Amino acid sequence: MSRPPRGFPDGEFRDRLARAQSLMRDAGLAALLLTTEPEIRYFTGFLTRFWESPTRPWFLVVPADDDPVAVIPSIGAHLMGQTWIGDIRTWHAPDYDDDGVSLLADTLCELVPATASIGVPGGLETHIRMPHDSWLGLQTATGRRKFVGDAGILRRLRMVKSSREIDKIRTACDIAGRAFARVPEMAARGETLDQMCRRFQALCLDEGADWVAYLAVGAGQGGYRDVISPPTGAGLDGGDVLMLDTGVVWDGYYCDFDRNFAVPPVAAAVDDAHKRLIEATQVGFDAARTGAEAADVFHAMNRVLTGGTAGETPGRLGHGLGMQLTEGLSLLPADRTVLEPGMVLTLEPSVSLPGQRMLVHEEDIVITAGGAEYLTQPAPQALPKLEIAA
Amino acid sequence: MSRPPRGFPDGEFRDRLARAQSLMRDAGLAALLLTTEPEIRYFTGFLTRFWESPTRPWFLVVPADDDPVAVIPSIGAHLMGQTWIGDIRTWHAPDYDDDGVSLLADTLCELVPATASIGVPGGLETHIRMPHDSWLGLQTATGRRKFVGDAGILRRLRMVKSSREIDKIRTACDIAGRAFARVPEMAARGETLDQMCRRFQALCLDEGADWVAYLAVGAGQGGYRDVISPPTGAGLDGGDVLMLDTGVVWDGYYCDFDRNFAVPPVAAAVDDAHKRLIEATQVGFDAARTGAEAADVFHAMNRVLTGGTAGETPGRLGHGLGMQLTEGLSLLPADRTVLEPGMVLTLEPSVSLPGQRMLVHEEDIVITAGGAEYLTQPAPQALPKLEIAA
Repeated sequence: MSRPPRGFPDGEFRDRLARAQSLMRDAGLAALLLTTEPEIRYFTGFLTRFWESPTRPWFLVVPADDDPVAVIPSIGAHLMGQTWIGDIRTWHAPDYDDDGVSLLADTLCELVPATASIGVPGGLETHIRMPHDSWLGLQTATGRRKFVGDAGILRRLRMVKSSREIDKIRTACDIAGRAFARVPEMAARGETLDQMCRRFQALCLDEGADWVAYLAVGAGQGGYRDVISPPTGAGLDGGDVLMLDTGVVWDGYYCDFDRNFAVPPVAAAVDDAHKRLIEATQVGFDAARTGAEAADVFHAMNRVLTGGTAGETPGRLGHGLGMQLTEGLSLLPADRTVLEPGMVLTLEPSVSLPGQRMLVHEEDIVITAGGAEYLTQPAPQALPKLEIAA
Repeated sequence: MSRPPRGFPDGEFRDRLARAQSLMRDAGLAALLLTTEPEIRYFTGFLTRFWESPTRPWFLVVPADDDPVAVIPSIGAHLMGQTWIGDIRTWHAPDYDDDGVSLLADTLCELVPATASIGVPGGLETHIRMPHDSWLGLQTATGRRKFVGDAGILRRLRMVKSSREIDKIRTACDIAGRAFARVPEMAARGETLDQMCRRFQALCLDEGADWVAYLAVGAGQGGYRDVISPPTGAGLDGGDVLMLDTGVVWDGYYCDFDRNFAVPPVAAAVDDAHKRLIEATQVGFDAARTGAEAADVFHAMNRVLTGGTAGETPGRLGHGLGMQLTEGLSLLPADRTVLEPGMVLTLEPSVSLPGQRMLVHEEDIVITAGGAEYLTQPAPQALPKLEIAA
């Protein structure tokens, strides 16, 4: 249970900044304006669960030729002061008249030339985390400066992880893996699904998780109907398949994988479906090589799952992860991202079963120069069986 | 440990809808467009931790004269189908060409007259949860329909809780209260702060929490420097004050309160500060009566904390809570919200101590016709002392 060190040396943030600034100059951006938790943490290391409160907006301005400037509520000043960021400007939020807009506008006007462009992350998975009226007010208060997209810079940078980031994700995977190994104990005690979900989260904490950001359960006879539901108070019965899917956080980095279990008697179709999922995962793993496209991995897995028939729509078969439960690339025909060393992704095949049931499996991997490596301990081909209290 | 029932009867959602529609007609809005988790859950009951994934946008359209229409990723269709919502329109997200924008635009064009106004929640605590380019595309695709603010409708409705909502918040408070009672056991074992934080979350789960959405720790000699930090690996020493602040979730509703503990020897100034916090809380409780303004409660508490001097800026001294850790009103001079029965809020006084230290205390209350009632078991005036392993 050795753990990597927490946090990052300042040099890692300087590297991220240098790469961003190089891309910003290429894209003709004088600065980036960041408003969401992972975007701000990526450049600062500012790690707090306080983002759970929607009350206050937080801003980071990343100039193309200078160090980042944090424009944040005063409640965060002490914690931000412990990061490498030197220029921290605060206001007393919430301010009903001007909730940081003037301070942010002044900062942008100081750092960005009068007709230059400011990049704001756009496209899939982004949003601007501030009230819409503040956003409109900011544009008025910054004159002829133009707010444009960030040319995909954040997505591109965050997609390739450093070895320190990968170590944190691996740590999260290890923690969840040890908790999954203890699911049979819970089932043997005859716990209900909601009891198991509470206990599973407690096990993750016991195994070293900082917090458990995500847990969904699927359960039902011969498969489940969806993979995003909270648990019910039902117990397990013979013929049920149980799936727990979790996102455990360690030092700000996530794992995201699931495990399936079945209560005998198990239909042959269910055992076969699990074998097919594991086979699709292994085929995806083999296809996930430096230079391949995300779409190639999708197609390799999809051939195992559906024979490649066009009529099926299995949805995406995996996705990036790291600072968020899901981020970056998707294993989809439309995603032409070229895989490179340091990319971390999930392989998440699914199969349909009779009665609108399904089975979904998920593992986490990292791309290296020599091919993919598992960050999880891959599940066995044989669907694990649970003994439940009579 | 009796628990209220989970979920809400359909009638409660119909009541919320009827109140919203009445306000929408007053405000001249043909529909509301909702994009965030609590906004959508408020009208549908759609409860999932899947919002942890930033990948997919979700939409709810609430017409002024018809039932809500969910426009959501297909992955959520089964779960949304278990709510009272009948009209559910889905697309396969993520779609790199059109991530729900056309489907949403078509829905709005169908439900909203060609020159009518669509309200989107604006102002404090809001944001539009969709990519900015999708937002701009939506405006183009909906012709002359105008997107305007929601006239504060969501804020106003959500601020006053039903008895069922209050029961859920009380349940969350009970759970966290029982976990706080077990902090001395942890300290007695000589655990480090990060061990205590993991254990505290596990205790909350053991006591019945669905999940632990928020936990921050403050610790230091004679007080702490901030209240939003994650724990360090340090242990407790004589003279330390420890504060845990948690947001436990039960059936989608939060508590938000903290508890302070001190390790002897405790400076008289620290004991006095805690007494002043409890006094300010009680004064706030007494002031929190139907018909009083949020600002009145602030001033009552502030007189205890600072003597009402203008130079001090203690920040807000409490806030609403319910479907989120913080929501709705703030105990601030600028907040003129008139308190009414069903409003749930925290009383959260803070005091400054030498060396840039502080102490913060927090309780949760509900406004009733007869005055406030505690949802938490109020802390004693005397700061609890911890015995730590030698």
